[in-house]
Amino acid sequence: MVLRKIFPKETDFFSMFASAGENLKDSAALLVELMEHLDKSEYLAKQIHEIEQNGDMLTHEIFRMLNKTFITPIDREDIHALVCRLDDVLDLIWTCADRSYLFKLKSSRPEAVELSKTLQTSAEVIMKAVSALKDKKYSYIQEFCIEINRLENKADTIFRNALAKLFEEEKDPIEIIKWKNIFEHLEDATDTCEDVANILESIVLKHA
Amino acid sequence: MVLRKIFPKETDFFSMFASAGENLKDSAALLVELMEHLDKSEYLAKQIHEIEQNGDMLTHEIFRMLNKTFITPIDREDIHALVCRLDDVLDLIWTCADRSYLFKLKSSRPEAVELSKTLQTSAEVIMKAVSALKDKKYSYIQEFCIEINRLENKADTIFRNALAKLFEEEKDPIEIIKWKNIFEHLEDATDTCEDVANILESIVLKHA
Amino acid sequence: MVLRKIFPKETDFFSMFASAGENLKDSAALLVELMEHLDKSEYLAKQIHEIEQNGDMLTHEIFRMLNKTFITPIDREDIHALVCRLDDVLDLIWTCADRSYLFKLKSSRPEAVELSKTLQTSAEVIMKAVSALKDKKYSYIQEFCIEINRLENKADTIFRNALAKLFEEEKDPIEIIKWKNIFEHLEDATDTCEDVANILESIVLKHA
Repeated sequence: MVLRKIFPKETDFFSMFASAGENLKDSAALLVELMEHLDKSEYLAKQIHEIEQNGDMLTHEIFRMLNKTFITPIDREDIHALVCRLDDVLDLIWTCADRSYLFKLKSSRPEAVELSKTLQTSAEVIMKAVSALKDKKYSYIQEFCIEINRLENKADTIFRNALAKLFEEEKDPIEIIKWKNIFEHLEDATDTCEDVANILESIVLKHA
Repeated sequence: MVLRKIFPKETDFFSMFASAGENLKDSAALLVELMEHLDKSEYLAKQIHEIEQNGDMLTHEIFRMLNKTFITPIDREDIHALVCRLDDVLDLIWTCADRSYLFKLKSSRPEAVELSKTLQTSAEVIMKAVSALKDKKYSYIQEFCIEINRLENKADTIFRNALAKLFEEEKDPIEIIKWKNIFEHLEDATDTCEDVANILESIVLKHA
Repeated sequence: MVLRKIFPKETDFFSMFASAGENLKDSAALLVELMEHLDKSEYLAKQIHEIEQNGDMLTHEIFRMLNKTFITPIDREDIHALVCRLDDVLDLIWTCADRSYLFKLKSSRPEAVELSKTLQTSAEVIMKAVSALKDKKYSYIQEFCIEINRLENKADTIFRNALAKLFEEEKDPIEIIKWKNIFEHLEDATDTCEDVANILESIVLKHA
């Protein structure tokens, strides 16, 4: 990641959005692997942590640029909101990974895999959407946002089903506490993807 | 709900606020019924879900209008914040209903009924307050905001009492997990009503 | 606390920020005492509650002034965000204290003391940072922000360790529910201190 700190060009913001999108995509892919192979949770959580720390630096750099740049290619507050929400998704992916490791979860639950796969698809669509900002492909972005909303609805159904099954099947209260927490973080992550879509949509509406 | 999409008039925003307020009032009334009759939770949660989905469409429509309208009757960011928070309250009411159903709660707890009744009163006051925006009845709105704050304080006392009693009386940890979750969502809903009141107050202060 | 309501001077905002900072510092000190002496939780929670209520009045007064003042010494939205987040930290400190009392926690856990001490240090640094706004000591504020970030990272490590130990050592699910809640609120409080630092940093960047 090369950051031109002194003379930021307009395009810098766009390439930084693309980097943030890629971080999401990569970390979500690792989270799917983690949910499928809980025995590798320590190793995979570490890898996700590295991406999350890169993401923190990237977010910080965008804020710094934002404060130093007079004319921004997109409304200042939209850039700020977009970057905050992208960072929130990455944080939540890392939290899911970390809790899975800290709780020493043994066997996975099919809904956790399903939820993380839905999140992965959302992350991929977000990456495409933020990358399309540069070339002002607004109609594409609108399609991507509809897709992210659809995925959030799908995740919500899986989440509610996961909760219902957890309380029906699991008799150990400590396992319930752990998995409820994991499911909630996974759902929170897809919810936050929808927040990203809402911001993108409002950017598109202003420029269309 | 007829939406004049092409030539939005100033008044549209106000009638849409009123619709959002009515959604809150109706869903909160159903939530009280649900907390009193948990055996009907599936049926009542479905009804609340329908209102919540109408609310989502309404919110989306307001955002669309906001992005297409040059001169808004109230500051753009205040409209945005107001609509977001109204939508959050409705979402939380739906979540309370849905969890009660998903958790297969059998017998209710008096504090859950009390909390949902307080929430219902808040929702009614919010409906009056947002409906008063159109005619600029600012001193009325201020009174309503004071009332919402009072109700939030009341809800907080009930909530804290509910938590204390739950941990004192209930010995089944799984029941504790379920009810703690329900109480927290109910409290969160009245908290968010207070956020609505804060936004209304700041609108009033700007115009008074 | 004397508030000049009719002719607010520029400096008023600064002295009010300092008061908010002092509230944080005082309540955090009491929270450390509470975590060290859970048998005094009722008495100490009451004292923290009083500070929290003073804080609410202060926040309300700042909002009122903000709406009545044409020219603010710092961007209006930055003042708003700063005051909201300071209030959130105070609320969370009060919630930690209150839950410790409501849950009738008997013996403390070393990580709870550690976390509350880290929070106390953060609160002290925040107080210094907001007090430095008046004299535009921006380089000092930047140093303070770096320190708050460092403390948040430290708190995060303690929190994750606390969670891991809790699930490893504690076998009573009800104790797990209670302490998980306390730890989460403590962590949330230091997280919100970081939000305060981010706002301060962005104020500094605009004025530097």
